[in-house]
Amino acid sequence: MIRAGIVGGTGYTGVELLRLLARHPQVELAAITSRKEAGMPVAEMFPSLRGHIDLAFSDPQQAGLDRCDVVFFATPNGIAMQQARELLAAGVRVIDLAADFRIRDLAVWQHWYGMEHACPELVAEAVYGLSEVNREQIRSARLVANPGCYPTVVQLGFLPLLEAGVADTGMLVADCKSGVSGAGRKTELPYLFAEASDNFKAYGASGHRHLPEIAQGLGRIVGKPVDLTFVPHLTPLIRGMHATLYMRVDRSVDVQALFEQRYVGEPFVDVMPPGSHPETRSVRGANTCRISWHRPQDGETVVVLAVIDNLVKGAAGQAVQNMNLMFGYAETLALEAPGLLP
Amino acid sequence: MIRAGIVGGTGYTGVELLRLLARHPQVELAAITSRKEAGMPVAEMFPSLRGHIDLAFSDPQQAGLDRCDVVFFATPNGIAMQQARELLAAGVRVIDLAADFRIRDLAVWQHWYGMEHACPELVAEAVYGLSEVNREQIRSARLVANPGCYPTVVQLGFLPLLEAGVADTGMLVADCKSGVSGAGRKTELPYLFAEASDNFKAYGASGHRHLPEIAQGLGRIVGKPVDLTFVPHLTPLIRGMHATLYMRVDRSVDVQALFEQRYVGEPFVDVMPPGSHPETRSVRGANTCRISWHRPQDGETVVVLAVIDNLVKGAAGQAVQNMNLMFGYAETLALEAPGLLP
Amino acid sequence: MIRAGIVGGTGYTGVELLRLLARHPQVELAAITSRKEAGMPVAEMFPSLRGHIDLAFSDPQQAGLDRCDVVFFATPNGIAMQQARELLAAGVRVIDLAADFRIRDLAVWQHWYGMEHACPELVAEAVYGLSEVNREQIRSARLVANPGCYPTVVQLGFLPLLEAGVADTGMLVADCKSGVSGAGRKTELPYLFAEASDNFKAYGASGHRHLPEIAQGLGRIVGKPVDLTFVPHLTPLIRGMHATLYMRVDRSVDVQALFEQRYVGEPFVDVMPPGSHPETRSVRGANTCRISWHRPQDGETVVVLAVIDNLVKGAAGQAVQNMNLMFGYAETLALEAPGLLP
Amino acid sequence: MIRAGIVGGTGYTGVELLRLLARHPQVELAAITSRKEAGMPVAEMFPSLRGHIDLAFSDPQQAGLDRCDVVFFATPNGIAMQQARELLAAGVRVIDLAADFRIRDLAVWQHWYGMEHACPELVAEAVYGLSEVNREQIRSARLVANPGCYPTVVQLGFLPLLEAGVADTGMLVADCKSGVSGAGRKTELPYLFAEASDNFKAYGASGHRHLPEIAQGLGRIVGKPVDLTFVPHLTPLIRGMHATLYMRVDRSVDVQALFEQRYVGEPFVDVMPPGSHPETRSVRGANTCRISWHRPQDGETVVVLAVIDNLVKGAAGQAVQNMNLMFGYAETLALEAPGLLP
Repeated sequence: MIRAGIVGGTGYTGVELLRLLARHPQVELAAITSRKEAGMPVAEMFPSLRGHIDLAFSDPQQAGLDRCDVVFFATPNGIAMQQARELLAAGVRVIDLAADFRIRDLAVWQHWYGMEHACPELVAEAVYGLSEVNREQIRSARLVANPGCYPTVVQLGFLPLLEAGVADTGMLVADCKSGVSGAGRKTELPYLFAEASDNFKAYGASGHRHLPEIAQGLGRIVGKPVDLTFVPHLTPLIRGMHATLYMRVDRSVDVQALFEQRYVGEPFVDVMPPGSHPETRSVRGANTCRISWHRPQDGETVVVLAVIDNLVKGAAGQAVQNMNLMFGYAETLALEAPGLLP
Repeated sequence: MIRAGIVGGTGYTGVELLRLLARHPQVELAAITSRKEAGMPVAEMFPSLRGHIDLAFSDPQQAGLDRCDVVFFATPNGIAMQQARELLAAGVRVIDLAADFRIRDLAVWQHWYGMEHACPELVAEAVYGLSEVNREQIRSARLVANPGCYPTVVQLGFLPLLEAGVADTGMLVADCKSGVSGAGRKTELPYLFAEASDNFKAYGASGHRHLPEIAQGLGRIVGKPVDLTFVPHLTPLIRGMHATLYMRVDRSVDVQALFEQRYVGEPFVDVMPPGSHPETRSVRGANTCRISWHRPQDGETVVVLAVIDNLVKGAAGQAVQNMNLMFGYAETLALEAPGLLP
Repeated sequence: MIRAGIVGGTGYTGVELLRLLARHPQVELAAITSRKEAGMPVAEMFPSLRGHIDLAFSDPQQAGLDRCDVVFFATPNGIAMQQARELLAAGVRVIDLAADFRIRDLAVWQHWYGMEHACPELVAEAVYGLSEVNREQIRSARLVANPGCYPTVVQLGFLPLLEAGVADTGMLVADCKSGVSGAGRKTELPYLFAEASDNFKAYGASGHRHLPEIAQGLGRIVGKPVDLTFVPHLTPLIRGMHATLYMRVDRSVDVQALFEQRYVGEPFVDVMPPGSHPETRSVRGANTCRISWHRPQDGETVVVLAVIDNLVKGAAGQAVQNMNLMFGYAETLALEAPGLLP
Repeated sequence: MIRAGIVGGTGYTGVELLRLLARHPQVELAAITSRKEAGMPVAEMFPSLRGHIDLAFSDPQQAGLDRCDVVFFATPNGIAMQQARELLAAGVRVIDLAADFRIRDLAVWQHWYGMEHACPELVAEAVYGLSEVNREQIRSARLVANPGCYPTVVQLGFLPLLEAGVADTGMLVADCKSGVSGAGRKTELPYLFAEASDNFKAYGASGHRHLPEIAQGLGRIVGKPVDLTFVPHLTPLIRGMHATLYMRVDRSVDVQALFEQRYVGEPFVDVMPPGSHPETRSVRGANTCRISWHRPQDGETVVVLAVIDNLVKGAAGQAVQNMNLMFGYAETLALEAPGLLP
């Protein structure tokens, strides 16, 4: 049994962590902080948790986070980097669901996130929490940088073919579609129901913060920079993220075999039979990444289709998966529920 | 550990049963039948169950249902009544999620359902599976008639005030709104996305099959027929059902106390604080009925607001709750997950 | 040809006015004001208007509103009452889409709207712009109080039976459902896509600002206060409003005839054949109120079903209808388009 | 004033034609046929048309189509090719909204559509009705093959760069997303609300019928076959189609200028300012194709974003545009309404 704390529990990744941890047999929820909502019962803000979580939000200063075994940061970018050092010093292990420790190159990070990094020495120590890539390092990590949602689904989709060296990295395209919860519980105009419903659009087509994170991950695999075009779109789903990936792969390559071999034994990556089209709803509320691929007109272009729930495998679920690894629990503990379909 | 069978597993109540039973620690899924889909793996039809359920649909004749401990009928109306007798004779306990055994008065049943009843003697034996009303009879029942979705939410909303005898039963109004999955996995025009999305309408306003079931339940409580107007509406949700109930209650009545007393200790009925407005999404995927009430302008009319997930507390979840009661398991087993919000 | 100005064109009623007036053959759009967005082209904020409207938002002080023939206030409550006096003095006719002039009883208005009225003498002069009731007064009005969306659909639904004196006004129930655009283009949490989508809830069940407006309208018809219970609900539509009205009406009354007689010749009220269920989408983008009624179980309760587009007949469309009356144009001018279905 | 007939008016392209033609000042709707629904008033099936269209569906044999000036086929594939010859012989001009006359190469057509062509000689005569490409031929055409929705938006998006010869046609990618009405008013499982709502998926990734139509159009421009990968996706919109196009274009090319020059004066193609992201809702109900482009990371890949309403510019609106051209009316007649936003 470990004690877990959550910093910033009022957003969607926060409430999703609460939903998952409330049912985790080895976790005692010790504290959930929110400066603004201190004193308010969590279940008053999120009635779905009535009867499941009795905690109230507490002020970060008085939450006793340093007495936790693990602290999750479900905060905006730039918060975890200010508090991680102190927590680690107190022996607390840290999982940051934001972007503070995802990018190795500080200059790149500072360019895309528009702030000075408060804690550069920890960037080097942090383990990038894509469990399917860094499982062993995560087990012993003090500080895990939980991947972004787009980077999770895009990397899992490209991995087998890039690792096998069969894809032409000179023109990779990642056309991605996200549900609206990916924007967070933020009261901004584009995310209003009357704006986002019955509407589809691209955004950030000229450049999006998740690009350098994806490029870093893919670049490490192939050992050199990749030429990646990444266009995110907003689609009227609450949850769900779909990546459609395009790349050149020689016709002789047995793509299905590469996918199956790469992900054999992975509890949260499901390679579908040839000809499949994964649906986002099939992973709604689940920690699964479901993948298939196509070779249209039997040509040189391979299309990979991959889906996740942006709040689960793309955020809170992957964080719990990492926590399970870090504390020696079964990797799937509290993450076994199938998707909610319909 | 018991062996459970499902007849008619290709509809929404069927897949929801599968989702719930897949995680039930005391249930072995023995058979899922579908004449039309015999041989098809369940997870091929419902990819959300890939990795969770390995069964294939089997032909009803060869499914060995008579070797199950319990059989659920997730079938259209009129099927369970043809097979229940034989199963009961073989010692199998039966839970019918359709309407075959819900209405005591055969003439009424035959009027609304437009067919001859194949099994009248079992109608008398069947226990109406509204757990909050008939808990003790359900424990020992051989045959449970699982309530309809509208009847569940409407009865739970009216119960405390009718049992206390404080509501004027001369004009009860139940204005109900259902998500589209309530219509089942049926390819009919009104349920197409392009028809039902961004649209709201009443249906069956002149008379709906759930009316006699509700009237029967309310009538039993007050010991005489009630004057109930019930109007269902279709609203663009996948899951979710909202009842808005109107009745006259003397100003002196402490409504909150009546609700809290009636449902104290009930694991699946959540009486909210005064002034609340329950949201359907707070019970998405959960077996909870969440209730609040209002007295507008401090007048004589009391408004009760109640929500359920039509596929869970309104169908498959309540069926599992009943199964738990019938087999002596904790009533909440496999039903503890909070709603999926957002 | 008249010159029209719009104060506060950045909300949903504002852009809807723009959509309708852009195609009005007798209207020249002279000015659209927004203090905050002054200088921004309207079509930059609302790309649907690219190629249709070349105007930019202008500062209210410099917009030359006093040189318009008519000015629409598509503003929050409390703005029109500060500017109407001056405009009227300049000979400009005013249509207020907000609530400033809707309620005759100043004390009631001040109670519900929480502010002092800045212009009480105009409240008495203002004509309530429900065209189907006050058509003749509207023609000559200087100042029109455009009705609220709920009051429009509820009054049109109750009117024929209340005017005929056949409904028991001792217990009227109006169970209403609104699309999310009814809340305006406001960045508040409950109206986010991830909050309002796939969700249904009541709100303001204990008391809503539209209640006194409806009660005033119904009370005038019957010559005494009515006992009305009004519960609004939020439903995941962009546009659309559905009223389900319950009242007692003696079985001998020919309800269909009363409706047809009351609305014969009305261009924007469509009485459907008996047994119909109007759908909100059938009036999407149209200025129509579509109505039907039912008498469940042939009892004493009559159920009226009425739908409007909250932004058209419930706001901007009705405002244009009133403008047409005020300036002697065909009442239907620029309002003839059928609903957008699907 | 011309007389227009519609064959197959019960689908979504049919009702959309009705909506548009009902307001066309130069068109008399002479007949709408449906074998199955003969005798039923159109407005009974589509209540949005109550008060706008008095016609009933008529049997094709008795509809007097040969006395029309123009007949639209809003039918499944394979119908128009059986009736066009006779109508043309009677002097009627024909616009086919289905695919019968879109593909020049009969073998290709027969491969993708799985039937023998009944009328090969007319394939050669038919003019492909992409007005922005074939405007002059359309004016004098007897038979117009109205383009598919995907082909319309994809061709308009690729055109300027392909015509200018600046795009590398060795790897073109068209990642397209369609609203559900694109599937027609067909009662098939994937298009149910409870299946398609809150869900996103690709379909036909290995090959879709619109591919040869797009490839034919692009190939003609560049004078040789192009290497196009086309992946369509289903997104939970009623209407709306978004194409995201990827291609290599040398950094020195002034893409904005090419788009603006190509579409200058085009009434229905709107080139947005640099950096824009067109939204599908901005063209909801409108005949506009709205386009922008990006060059991510200032690299060699250009991304074009283009949106249409699949039922308007992607079907019925383009058909009316073609009709206007064929009969010498202003090209924009009855197509001037802006999109319905929100």
